Amino acid sequence: MVQQRPRRIHIHDVAMRDGLQIEPNFVPTEQKIALINALSRTGVSKIEATSFTSPKAIPALRDAEEVMMGIERAPGVKYVCLVPNMRGAQRAMQCGVDEINLVMSASETHNLANLRMTREQSLRVLSEITAELQGKIDINISISTAFGCPMEGIVPSEDVLRLGDRFAALGVQGITLCDTTGMANPAQVEALCTGLAQRWPLELTLHFHNTRGMGLANVIAGLATGIDRYDSSLAGLGGCPYAPGATGNICSEDLVHMLDSMGLQTGVDLDRLVFCAKQMAEMVGHDVPGQVMKAGRWDKRFPVPPDLELTRERALARDAH
Amino acid sequence: MVQQRPRRIHIHDVAMRDGLQIEPNFVPTEQKIALINALSRTGVSKIEATSFTSPKAIPALRDAEEVMMGIERAPGVKYVCLVPNMRGAQRAMQCGVDEINLVMSASETHNLANLRMTREQSLRVLSEITAELQGKIDINISISTAFGCPMEGIVPSEDVLRLGDRFAALGVQGITLCDTTGMANPAQVEALCTGLAQRWPLELTLHFHNTRGMGLANVIAGLATGIDRYDSSLAGLGGCPYAPGATGNICSEDLVHMLDSMGLQTGVDLDRLVFCAKQMAEMVGHDVPGQVMKAGRWDKRFPVPPDLELTRERALARDAH
Repeated sequence: MVQQRPRRIHIHDVAMRDGLQIEPNFVPTEQKIALINALSRTGVSKIEATSFTSPKAIPALRDAEEVMMGIERAPGVKYVCLVPNMRGAQRAMQCGVDEINLVMSASETHNLANLRMTREQSLRVLSEITAELQGKIDINISISTAFGCPMEGIVPSEDVLRLGDRFAALGVQGITLCDTTGMANPAQVEALCTGLAQRWPLELTLHFHNTRGMGLANVIAGLATGIDRYDSSLAGLGGCPYAPGATGNICSEDLVHMLDSMGLQTGVDLDRLVFCAKQMAEMVGHDVPGQVMKAGRWDKRFPVPPDLELTRERALARDAH
Repeated sequence: MVQQRPRRIHIHDVAMRDGLQIEPNFVPTEQKIALINALSRTGVSKIEATSFTSPKAIPALRDAEEVMMGIERAPGVKYVCLVPNMRGAQRAMQCGVDEINLVMSASETHNLANLRMTREQSLRVLSEITAELQGKIDINISISTAFGCPMEGIVPSEDVLRLGDRFAALGVQGITLCDTTGMANPAQVEALCTGLAQRWPLELTLHFHNTRGMGLANVIAGLATGIDRYDSSLAGLGGCPYAPGATGNICSEDLVHMLDSMGLQTGVDLDRLVFCAKQMAEMVGHDVPGQVMKAGRWDKRFPVPPDLELTRERALARDAH
């Protein structure tokens, strides 16, 4: 069941969208642009830069156009935006976004509560958008509550697989399985994801939250199934209304740090990423869950106590008596 | 390399020792006793209750005798105490401790800085104590800095293996490999621990810190090597002077929660453990790293929005037009 871990892992930073969307204070547009520009130079593969949604629904991202038009694009980085419908997709295309991220839930209750459509309706909308825009822009579809629904509980894996099969058949570029509220565990990740990369020959991404502390453990399980793309968030920003006080998305720099220390390649410069995470923490103005920004890298060396030689001499002198 | 995960995992809670020893405020003895008594009824396999060390070195644990004599012992729970030397071992035995935990570091610098002895001297002391007390009390030896030294950096795995071989030859009941400052990563855990349970046929325990967020990921790696005993700390208490601001030991209730959700048996009642963790947080009077005590279990169900049926009707009505 367990295969060789992928040698090259792709990091998709979603902090600018999944993180900022729930921040109570509006982050000024120029600060967002500066941070995306800095993040563009870290080596991440994708940046989910904003969301083309209604400014009333998500006021924190009401400056989507200004952000997308204001940033400097770095070669090799894909700029992704979440869009809820055709109107959003058109706005994204006008800004020259590289990839749109469409979303629906694997569970009916979450889809209704979050998107105000039945799953059948969402599936139709996503199919229409895909049919219309295929070939004009890359399309990724995120399946929310793929590892559990905070209202329904267990989501049958057949529901997730059936949805993914439909999207794969539509010819989208990528599918993301989202653990929207941090319910996934490593055994479940292995069970659901083993064989998926073969079943859906496209860009397959896992999106974990660290709500209950299992985020990086789930990445280890995902890697064991061969999946090489992970959504994560600078400084561990994000979170969800169902778990107040809990941590948010898995933390980008903590993820890169773990993969680095394991000898796996991400193409990301950890020092630059930590710098961006610190900027993010300053921008939002509150404590953030990121650990490596506080503790430093695993290979950080601390000074030897100045009296160590004296300690050694005294210790050996005790033996002499 | 990867084998079946163990079906039954043993949890050793070390919060009363590894957690409390660095707390700036003295926790009253009766509160310690009450919490150990509550913890005794959770189903953990071992409780590291205190440390028989000099009250000057660790004033937070200066009430070791009163604590050990004051608690009610639960059947099936082993009460362990850390002891630095023969004097400490004798104090522990006078209190009827079930197991003493001896300690030395795998790296020379950490051993000198922490214990004021060379490794050779520590090895001699530990051998003497073991020879003297073998058969009178169970003995576990903890190898600190087994996955890295904050001052020396990489610790050669041969050094760790050679030390463990010596201890196994002494006939001790258990060996614990400690990631003292949270430097271990899952690939390293797999590399060092694969085959260890066969090499040392005794109680083999892993002790991780979550300093850089990799704690539970390391447990997943440890389980893949077949190791079934883990040190952890209520509420994630603990920490280390080398990483100020970082989290401490891996969190007991977050660990049990992960194993529960994976369908693995720990024998621990998670609700009772979370109750103890909340008591601990109140006792120390500051924010603690534990996640599950904030977010609730993975299978916690949230209420469906009251207007969900109306939302569905409206959504379907849009189709009808």
